[in-house]
Amino acid sequence: MEAELEKFRRELELIGERARRAALALGGVSPEDKVKALELMARGLDGAREELKAANRLDLEAAERSGLPAPKIDRLTLTDARIDAMIAGLRTVAAQRDPVGRVLERRTRPNGLEITKIAVPFGVVGIIYESRPNVTVDASGIALKAGNAVILRGGSDAFNSNRFLAGVLNRSAMAAGIPDGAVQLLPWTSREAVKLMLKLDKYIDLVIPRGGENLIRMVTSEATMPVLKHYKGVCHLFVDKGADIDAALKIIVNAKCQRPGVCNALETLLVRRDMAASFLPRFAETMRAEHVEVRGDETVRKFVPGAKPATEDDYYAEYLDLILAVRVVDDVKAAVEHINFYGSHHSDGILSPDADDVKYFQTFVDSAVVYANASTRFTDGGEFGMGAEIGISTDKLHARGPMGVDELTSYKYLVVGNGQIRE
Amino acid sequence: MEAELEKFRRELELIGERARRAALALGGVSPEDKVKALELMARGLDGAREELKAANRLDLEAAERSGLPAPKIDRLTLTDARIDAMIAGLRTVAAQRDPVGRVLERRTRPNGLEITKIAVPFGVVGIIYESRPNVTVDASGIALKAGNAVILRGGSDAFNSNRFLAGVLNRSAMAAGIPDGAVQLLPWTSREAVKLMLKLDKYIDLVIPRGGENLIRMVTSEATMPVLKHYKGVCHLFVDKGADIDAALKIIVNAKCQRPGVCNALETLLVRRDMAASFLPRFAETMRAEHVEVRGDETVRKFVPGAKPATEDDYYAEYLDLILAVRVVDDVKAAVEHINFYGSHHSDGILSPDADDVKYFQTFVDSAVVYANASTRFTDGGEFGMGAEIGISTDKLHARGPMGVDELTSYKYLVVGNGQIRE
Repeated sequence: MEAELEKFRRELELIGERARRAALALGGVSPEDKVKALELMARGLDGAREELKAANRLDLEAAERSGLPAPKIDRLTLTDARIDAMIAGLRTVAAQRDPVGRVLERRTRPNGLEITKIAVPFGVVGIIYESRPNVTVDASGIALKAGNAVILRGGSDAFNSNRFLAGVLNRSAMAAGIPDGAVQLLPWTSREAVKLMLKLDKYIDLVIPRGGENLIRMVTSEATMPVLKHYKGVCHLFVDKGADIDAALKIIVNAKCQRPGVCNALETLLVRRDMAASFLPRFAETMRAEHVEVRGDETVRKFVPGAKPATEDDYYAEYLDLILAVRVVDDVKAAVEHINFYGSHHSDGILSPDADDVKYFQTFVDSAVVYANASTRFTDGGEFGMGAEIGISTDKLHARGPMGVDELTSYKYLVVGNGQIRE
Repeated sequence: MEAELEKFRRELELIGERARRAALALGGVSPEDKVKALELMARGLDGAREELKAANRLDLEAAERSGLPAPKIDRLTLTDARIDAMIAGLRTVAAQRDPVGRVLERRTRPNGLEITKIAVPFGVVGIIYESRPNVTVDASGIALKAGNAVILRGGSDAFNSNRFLAGVLNRSAMAAGIPDGAVQLLPWTSREAVKLMLKLDKYIDLVIPRGGENLIRMVTSEATMPVLKHYKGVCHLFVDKGADIDAALKIIVNAKCQRPGVCNALETLLVRRDMAASFLPRFAETMRAEHVEVRGDETVRKFVPGAKPATEDDYYAEYLDLILAVRVVDDVKAAVEHINFYGSHHSDGILSPDADDVKYFQTFVDSAVVYANASTRFTDGGEFGMGAEIGISTDKLHARGPMGVDELTSYKYLVVGNGQIRE
C-alpha cells in the first residue's frame, strides 16, 4: 500500500509539472488559437466515435457485472446523440467571448504610473466529479477557453470512457500548438489518490468538486488549495400579501415540479399569514393535481387536506423529489429570517406586487440569486446568458451563483512607468 | 483544560451569533449611516485618549516585565501621534466611495427577466493578527465601510489596548444604530482559542490572517472557511538589454533600500547576460555605497568585488534586509522562468526599452503585479489609488494584489420578473 502511494506521488508530480507547463504556455495563447484548439477537440471526438464507444462499452460491461442500477447505467452510456451534444458543447464554448485579457479597470496615477487590471487564467484547475463522462469534455472545454489546464479525476464507473476522452482532448490541444498536459485524467480513482491530488497546491491553483455533499465535504476538508463549491440548493419562494394567486401557482409548480431533482428546484414555500385563507385552498388543489406531498405547519394543515406535519428537519431538507415543506409566516421580515436561517444561500424568491417588500427581500436575503416574481429554476449559466456553465457556487468568495468562463479567470495588475520610484 | 475549551466554545457561539446579527443589519445600512458610524468611531477614539493610553500602559508594563525587545515595545506604544493617525485613517475610509450596491453587470434576457449583479458585503470577516494595535482600528474601519462585521483576534502583547479599542469601536457603531456585534475582539489569545474560531464557518464567512508565514500556514490549514492570505514577497527586477543604467540603479536602490523590511521590497535581481559587463560594475559601486550585501552567481562575482556566492536557497529567500541575490540570465524568457519558479507571485518588474520584451514579461510572469520600468515598492493600496488597504493577496481566488474596501465585498444576482417560468 505504502509503495503504491509512493508510486502515485511520483506520477502525480509528473502530472502536476506537465499541467503547470501547459498552463504557463496557455497564458500566452491567442484567442484565435484557443478557438482552433476547441475546434480540433470537437473534430477529434467526431473522428473517434467508434473507439470512444468501444471504450464506453468496457465501462458498461463492468457496470453490468457489478450490478450498477439502471438509471446510473443509462447516465453512463455514450450514444451518438450524446457524443453530438459534447461536440456541440465544445463549439458553443469556442464561439463565446474570450474571457482572458479583458481590461477590468484602468487608471493613471498622479505620478504617471499606468495601472491596468486585466483578466488572466487561473493556471491549473483540478476538477473532481462522479459518473457522467460528458463532464470530462464540458469542463475541459470551459477551462481551456479561459486559458487553464485541467487535471481531472472522474468516477471509477466511467474510467475507460474518461481516459479515452481526455486523451483525445489533450492530443487535439497539442495539434493546436499547446504543450502536452492541457487535459490530463488522474490514472487512479481511489480516495487515497484523490487525497494526494488535493495536497498538490504547488501545481493546482483551484479545485472544483462536482457531485454529492459527501464528496464536496471531503474535498473541502482535504484540499490545501482554494475550492469553489456548491453544497446544496434549499430554495424558497415566499407568497407575499396581494400576490397574484394564478401567477404564483404557475411559478410554484414550475419551481417544484418541472425538474425536482436539480439544485434550483423549490424545497420550501413560505406563505404570508394574511394570504393563508385565500391562497392555501387553491394551492392544495394544485399540489394534489401535481402529486406533490405537502408537509406543513398547523395553519397549513388546516387548509391542505392530507398534509403531513413539517418537522424542523423538513425546513433544512433538500428533497430533490415531489415533496414540499410549507410554512406560514407573519410578514416579509419573518420570511427573510426563515430563509437566512434554514436556507443554503442558493436561490430564493418573493412573489409580491409590493415594491417595498420586494426591495426588503432582495436586500436582506443572503443568497447567490434573489428573485422577484419568477421561478427559481432560472439559476443556470445558460439562462443567465453566460453560455456554458461549470457549476453553481454557493460560496461568497470569488464566484457566487452560476460560474461560466469569466469565473474561471483571475486577474493581475500591469503597471507601466518611466522610471518612477516611491518617495 | 477541556472545561475551559468548552467555555470558549459556548462564548464563541455567542460572539458568532452577535456578529451574524450585526452583519445582517449592516447589509441594509445606508452609505450615509456607515459614514456616520465611522465618524462616531473616530470621535469615540478622540474622546477616550486618556483611557486608551492607560489600557496601553498595562500592555507596555507587561511587555517590559516579560522582556519584550525594544523594537516590539516601540510598535506596541500608542502615542498621541499614533492615535491621531488611527482617527485620520477612519475618516479617510469614511470619505471613500461606498463599495456596496455597485452594479457590476446588468442584462435583460429575451424572456424579459432583468438580471442585476450587485456588490454586497461578505457578512462576517475574521481577522487574525499580531502585535500593532492600529490594525484593530484600520481593519474594523475598512470592514465596516464594506458592510461587514468583524471578529478580531489580536496578539497577546496588545490585548488590553485591543480590547479597549474594540469596545470603543463597537459602542460607536451602536450609537449609529448598528446592533451590538459589529466589532468584537476574541477575549482569549491562545492558539487553542484561535483554532476554535477557525472552525466557526457557520458564522464567519472569510478569514484574513495578517502576520508571519507560520501564523498564515496555521490559519490556512485549520480554517474551514475561505481564507485570503499573503505568504511572502520574493520580488524581482530584471535588467533587460538596452536598459537605461542610471534609471535602473535608481529603481533598484528604491526597491531594495527604501524600506527593506516590507513585502514589496526587492529580493532578487536578474541581469541579462549581454548587460553584465556594462551594468554590473556600476551596480557594484552603488550597492557598496548603499551597504547592500550582494550574493551572486559566478558571472556576478566576477564584476562585484566581495559578492558572496548565491546558493539555491538565496533564490527562494525573502531577506527583508539589506541583502540582494543577483543572477545573470540569458534573455527575457529565462528571466520569466526564474521568476515563476522561485518567486512568490507578488510583484516583479522588467527594466527595458524594448516593447516586445515588456509584453512578453508582463504576459508570462504569473504575479499579482507585473511592472515595467518602475519600482516594486508601489504595490500598495494607497499607491494604487484604492484608499485604505487591508493587506496584499498572493492568492489568485477573489482578490489578488492590494485589497481595499471593494475586495471586502462579494456579490449577488437580483432577478426581477413578471411571472416567468422555465420552459
